[in-house]
Amino acid sequence: MATGHMIKAFDEELDALRGTVCEMGGIAEQAIVEAMEARVRGDLEAAARVVERDRRIDELETEIENVAVRIMACGSPTPDELREVVAALKIAGVVERIGDYAKNIAKRVPSVEDSRIRPVSLLPEMARIASEMVHNVLDAFAARDPEKARLVRERDVAVDDFYNSIFRALLTHMMENPHNITPATHLLFVARNLERIGDHATNVAEMVYFAATGAHLGDRAKGADTTGIAADEIGNDPYGR
Amino acid sequence: MATGHMIKAFDEELDALRGTVCEMGGIAEQAIVEAMEARVRGDLEAAARVVERDRRIDELETEIENVAVRIMACGSPTPDELREVVAALKIAGVVERIGDYAKNIAKRVPSVEDSRIRPVSLLPEMARIASEMVHNVLDAFAARDPEKARLVRERDVAVDDFYNSIFRALLTHMMENPHNITPATHLLFVARNLERIGDHATNVAEMVYFAATGAHLGDRAKGADTTGIAADEIGNDPYGR
Repeated sequence: MATGHMIKAFDEELDALRGTVCEMGGIAEQAIVEAMEARVRGDLEAAARVVERDRRIDELETEIENVAVRIMACGSPTPDELREVVAALKIAGVVERIGDYAKNIAKRVPSVEDSRIRPVSLLPEMARIASEMVHNVLDAFAARDPEKARLVRERDVAVDDFYNSIFRALLTHMMENPHNITPATHLLFVARNLERIGDHATNVAEMVYFAATGAHLGDRAKGADTTGIAADEIGNDPYGR
Repeated sequence: MATGHMIKAFDEELDALRGTVCEMGGIAEQAIVEAMEARVRGDLEAAARVVERDRRIDELETEIENVAVRIMACGSPTPDELREVVAALKIAGVVERIGDYAKNIAKRVPSVEDSRIRPVSLLPEMARIASEMVHNVLDAFAARDPEKARLVRERDVAVDDFYNSIFRALLTHMMENPHNITPATHLLFVARNLERIGDHATNVAEMVYFAATGAHLGDRAKGADTTGIAADEIGNDPYGR
């Protein structure tokens, strides 16, 4: 990237912009874990707090757009500098979507009566990994660390494996007992939200890697998909290869 | 908006940018219908064509980012002009996601054996409405027509109603016969992809309305949600209210 060419003021503005994106990410990361804890405990108040806090993520995205426009309007940034701003805007958009998925998990708390269903015990661990991926990919973004970004993408294989196991386990629960069908369907959507969070963190990892190295990470390992669904939901490569 | 203040060249560049966003939208709109037709006919080749064509949507998004950077770098656009470019980038990102959902429907074709399941007959109509929403919201974007944008958002209520009906019907099919559980689960995800497309078209409608009027559309009608899931998936207001 053209960091070397940047005038200091622009560089500082861009770092501040990155900082706000990371602040968004911190809220989203926390929301994933808290939403899952609320679900496991059936804690409606904690779930409501997660839903309420998502507004803050949306406010930060709007703030980021305004700051981005301001710094693009001051001075005359080079195309490479503009690309950096556009990348920050794009990543902020992905973080907003991650916050949405966490909110969706929290919103689903009231409608889940799944005490009898075992795979719920896998979901908190899946949530922990997804949350760590969000944390680490934003560290990689702030530090422009391609290696850290690469490692985040590798972890997505574990999230897909969790999704596949949970998906299959839920199908068997549905088949065993029709009373499990409705709660299992809700759990299926919770697992899907976590799987999507992993995919979005992976998309960000690919953007960070490309921005730092100018090279694309190779194709994703999709071997982990065994449901015929998880792979359907793997996000597009941000560079459309 | 500050259209009046724009220098002509910028305005023409921006119109060209909008044109490319609409071209993306046209491909996505067509992909939704073709993916559903392929699913209904079990036509794997047609499904593969839809998946393949999604690459073009991704290429166009990359192209839009490059053009946006170029026009932001030429001359010195005003903050309002930059906002217009940022809005076009944001809408291109949403269209890319819509294309993804269509691709996901097409990818699911091979894994669906649902001949015995009735609600499949509702899905093509739901797909038609979702596809029309995408078409109309991009017309509204190109024409900066807030009334057309408002009407698109109203149609999303119909998409949510379809989703709710299909969701409930699929649950009953699962309960009636365990052999229906796997195909019904796949259909559930097809319906969800269509429901998400409607939400994304609605997000764009809200952006277009705001850009054209400076005012926000009121809260969405969420009364249509009766599954406790559709509402979970309603996208965030793009302005984070």
